[in-house]
Amino acid sequence: MTAIRKAACIGGGVIGGAWAARLLLGGIDVSMYDPHPEAKRIVGEVLANAERAYAMLTMAPLLARGRLTFSESLKEAVAGADWIQESVPERLDLKRGVITEIDRYADPKALIGSSTSGIMPTELQRDMKHPERMFVAHPYNPVYLLPLAELVGGERTSPETLELAKAMLAPIGMKGVILKKEIEAFVGDRLLEAIWREGLWLIHDDICDTETLDDVIRYSFGMRWAQMGLFETYRIAGGEAGMRHFLAQFGPCLSWPWTKLTDVVDLNDALVDKIAAQSDAQSGSRGIRELERIRDENLVGIMQALKGGDGGKGWGSGKVLADFEKHLWAKGGGKREMPDFSQPLRLVDTKVSAAWVDYNGHMTEHRYLQIFGDTSDALLRLIGVDFAYVEKGHSYYTVETHIRHLGEAKLGQALYTVLQVLSFDEKRIRYFTTLHDAQTGDALATAEQLMLHVDSGAGKATAAPKDILARLRPIAEAHARLPVPDGAGRSVGQKT
Amino acid sequence: MTAIRKAACIGGGVIGGAWAARLLLGGIDVSMYDPHPEAKRIVGEVLANAERAYAMLTMAPLLARGRLTFSESLKEAVAGADWIQESVPERLDLKRGVITEIDRYADPKALIGSSTSGIMPTELQRDMKHPERMFVAHPYNPVYLLPLAELVGGERTSPETLELAKAMLAPIGMKGVILKKEIEAFVGDRLLEAIWREGLWLIHDDICDTETLDDVIRYSFGMRWAQMGLFETYRIAGGEAGMRHFLAQFGPCLSWPWTKLTDVVDLNDALVDKIAAQSDAQSGSRGIRELERIRDENLVGIMQALKGGDGGKGWGSGKVLADFEKHLWAKGGGKREMPDFSQPLRLVDTKVSAAWVDYNGHMTEHRYLQIFGDTSDALLRLIGVDFAYVEKGHSYYTVETHIRHLGEAKLGQALYTVLQVLSFDEKRIRYFTTLHDAQTGDALATAEQLMLHVDSGAGKATAAPKDILARLRPIAEAHARLPVPDGAGRSVGQKT
Repeated sequence: MTAIRKAACIGGGVIGGAWAARLLLGGIDVSMYDPHPEAKRIVGEVLANAERAYAMLTMAPLLARGRLTFSESLKEAVAGADWIQESVPERLDLKRGVITEIDRYADPKALIGSSTSGIMPTELQRDMKHPERMFVAHPYNPVYLLPLAELVGGERTSPETLELAKAMLAPIGMKGVILKKEIEAFVGDRLLEAIWREGLWLIHDDICDTETLDDVIRYSFGMRWAQMGLFETYRIAGGEAGMRHFLAQFGPCLSWPWTKLTDVVDLNDALVDKIAAQSDAQSGSRGIRELERIRDENLVGIMQALKGGDGGKGWGSGKVLADFEKHLWAKGGGKREMPDFSQPLRLVDTKVSAAWVDYNGHMTEHRYLQIFGDTSDALLRLIGVDFAYVEKGHSYYTVETHIRHLGEAKLGQALYTVLQVLSFDEKRIRYFTTLHDAQTGDALATAEQLMLHVDSGAGKATAAPKDILARLRPIAEAHARLPVPDGAGRSVGQKT
Repeated sequence: MTAIRKAACIGGGVIGGAWAARLLLGGIDVSMYDPHPEAKRIVGEVLANAERAYAMLTMAPLLARGRLTFSESLKEAVAGADWIQESVPERLDLKRGVITEIDRYADPKALIGSSTSGIMPTELQRDMKHPERMFVAHPYNPVYLLPLAELVGGERTSPETLELAKAMLAPIGMKGVILKKEIEAFVGDRLLEAIWREGLWLIHDDICDTETLDDVIRYSFGMRWAQMGLFETYRIAGGEAGMRHFLAQFGPCLSWPWTKLTDVVDLNDALVDKIAAQSDAQSGSRGIRELERIRDENLVGIMQALKGGDGGKGWGSGKVLADFEKHLWAKGGGKREMPDFSQPLRLVDTKVSAAWVDYNGHMTEHRYLQIFGDTSDALLRLIGVDFAYVEKGHSYYTVETHIRHLGEAKLGQALYTVLQVLSFDEKRIRYFTTLHDAQTGDALATAEQLMLHVDSGAGKATAAPKDILARLRPIAEAHARLPVPDGAGRSVGQKT
C-alpha cells in the first residue's frame, strides 16, 4: 500500500491539529508549523480528543504513535515530508502565499494538499513551480474520525496526483473522494450551504426553533444519510421501478413554490440573536467539550455499527473502519517490544466506552468477555497468529471459558488485563486472564480459557506449526514457575 | 402513559403499510382500508421487513403483535379507533375528501393524522365537522424504524391535539416533533428539497456523479446529522465562543455566489437519463430488496450504537429506542403464557445480526454470552425480577459463568436457548443454558451460570423476597427431576 512516510502540517488550528492527530495515530511522524502562540495548546487538546476516540474506536493494535515536532519555520517543517497539508485561514492571498512557499522548499515530488473549504485549486496553484502535485484535500470535522477528504484538482494538477493522494490516505483510515471538476465550495459545502440557507429561513419565519429543526434531521433523514446518502436512499424510495420512477414522482416538486430559493436571508443582528438564544436553550446546559465528547462517542458507535453492515463486510464508514483495522492487524501494532515473560503478560489497556454500559452506567456482562477475547487475540499475535496467519486457513478457536465476577466496571473506567499461560500442548493453550481497575489495581473479573488450534476449512483441531509453538514455549515455561492463580481450575459454584 | 388503543390506517401503500407495521409491532390492533388490489401484498411485505428489523433491534420482550384486519369500507375501518392515519396519494382533493369522510364516521374524539409530505393541514381540514382533532403526522421511510413524525396543526387544530398526539406516539417508539406554524412541505422536506435541488445541479454540471455525491454525504456530515443535526453540530464548530462566533464566521457565505440558488434545474429527459444511468452504475448490482435489508440493518445498528450515547443514557434516536425498551420491559412482553416447567425453558429466540459477526461471518465470541445474558434476563422476568423491580434497588447479578463452544453460529442463523435450573437457595440461582441452531436443533454452546441476589445500593448479597422465591421454586423443583445436563459442574479443560 502507498503510504505517507512523513507529513508536514502548515497551520495548527482545529483542522490542522486534527489532521496532525489523524496522521500521528496512523503511525506517521508530523512536523507542524504555526506561528500562532496558542498552536501547541490547541493541537495538544485535539490530539487528546483523538486519542480518547481511537481507544474506543478499535481493538485492533494501534500503531506506535508518530512523533510530533513543532518547527521554527515553514522551510524546516516541510523538509523530508512526502505529504504537506496546508490549513491556514480561509483567505486566497494568504493561502496562495503559503502554498507557493511550501512549493519552493518541499521535495518536488511531495504532495501538497489544501484544507480550503471553498477556494478553487487553480487559484491556489497559480504561482507554483510544481503545480501538478497540488490539490484540495478538504476534510470534515472531526478530521480524526470522519473519513472523508474531498480531493479536487486544479487546471494544472495531474490526474495521477489525485489517485496517489487517495491511495496515501487509505492507510490512515480516510476515504479520498475525487471530484470530476473544480467548483467553488466543492460538493459537500454546496449541499451544506443549500440546507443552511433554507434552515435559516425556517428559523427566521418562526416555523420552528433550532432544536426542533435538529430533531427533524436526526430522527429521520440524518440516519439515512449516515449510511447511504441522497441518491441511493431515493433509489429505494422509487421501489422496484427504480430511480427513473422516483424522479418522475419527485421531480415536479422542484417547480413548486415551496422553498425560499430566490432569496438570501439577511443574517442581521436580530436573527443572530434569535439563533444564538435558541441554540443556548437547546444545548447550553452542556459545554462545548462535553458536546465534542458525546459527538465523538456517537461517531465511534456509528462506525462500529456500520462495520457489521452488508453481512459483516462493512458498509460506508464502517467499511473504511474495517479496512483500517485490517491494515492495523497486518502491521501488528508496529515496533512491539517483547514483554517480560517472568510475569503474567499485560496485554490490553482499554476504557469502558459508552456503548458498553447499561442504563446504570455499569459495563454489560458480555463486554467482559469481549475484553477477555481481545486479550486472547493479543496473546495470539505475540506468538505469530496474526491476521495473515488466519487468512491462510489456520487459527486458534476458544472452546471453553470460565468467568468470575469480582467487582464492577463503570463508564469511563480505565482497565487492563494480565494473562498467565497455565498449560499447553501442540493443539491446546489453557490460560488465565485477570481484568484490573487501572487506578486501584483491583481485580474486577477473571477468565480461565482453553483454545484449540484448528484448520478452519476442515473445521478440525490440528497441531500448531513449530514456529508458533516455539514462540509459545518460553512464555508457558516461564509462567509455569509462577503460582497457579486463585480461581483456576474452578467449576461454577464450587466451594473454595 | 397515554397510548393508542386501536388504530385505523386509511391507505396501505409503502407509507400506510409501514405505519400499520409500527402500530402492530407496538401491540396495537389495526384496521386497514385500501381498495387497491395489491394492498394486502404490499402491507404484508412491509410487515415482514419490519418484523425482521425488530428482531434485530431489541432484546426487550416485544409485545404480542396487534391484530391486522382489512376492512371492506372506510366506515368499518375507523369504527372504534382512537388514532386514524390517512396515507392516500398526495392530491389535495383526494386527501381532503378522505379526511372529511373519516371525520364523518370516526368517534369525534379520535385523532386523525395525515401522512402528507407537503399539504397544509388547514387545507385538509376545511370540510370537517371536528377539525380540532386533525393534524399532519408526517413520517419518514422506513416508518417502522425512523422515529420522526412531524406534527403540524392547521388553523382549526387545537394545541392539545398536538400534545396528545406526541404522547400517544411515544409508546410505539416514535418521536413526535411539533412545529410552531404550518408551512407547505413542513421542515424536513424543505431541507431535503434544498439539498436535492443543489444536488441535481452538481450532477447536471458534471462536478461529480451520484455515487461520489452520496459518498461525500455518508463519509462526513451524514454521520454528524444522524446524531446532532445542523445547529448543534455548528455550535461545536464555533468552539468555546459558541453559536454567535460560528454565525459571524459562516454567515457571510450566504451572499457569496456559490450555489445555484436562483435557478431551478430543468429535469428534462437528458438529465433523468444521466441520473438513472449513474444510479444504476452505483447501486444496480443490488436489488431494491437487498438495499432495503442493508438500510434497515444499518439503521438498527445506528440506533443501538446511539443507545449507549451520553454516558449510557441514550442520545437522539438511541434515546428513543431506550425509552421504547423501558416501555417494553415494563409491559413485560404482553400476555405471556407460563411455560411448561417439566422441561428446560425455551426463553430466547433470536437471529445472528450483522453487527454480531466477524469478517468471516461467524458470530463473535462475546455475542454468545450476550445471548446467554438475555436468557438470564428472561428467566428473571419470569420470576418477577423485571425493570420495575430493578429500579427499586434489588437485582440478581451474575457472578460466575462457564461456557463451552460446541459449534459455530453464522450470520443470519436462527437460534434459540433453553434453560434448566440446577439449584437455588434464598440468595443464589445456578442454571444451565444451551444455545441451539433453530433449524437442526444442534447444540452450539452451553453456559452454566451462577447469579446472586443483591441490594444494588449497598452492593451486597441479600436474600430474595418471598414472592420471587415462590415463583422460582416450582421451576427449580420441576427441573430437579430432569437429568443433570452433560457438561454441568465442569471446570475448564477437565477430562470427561
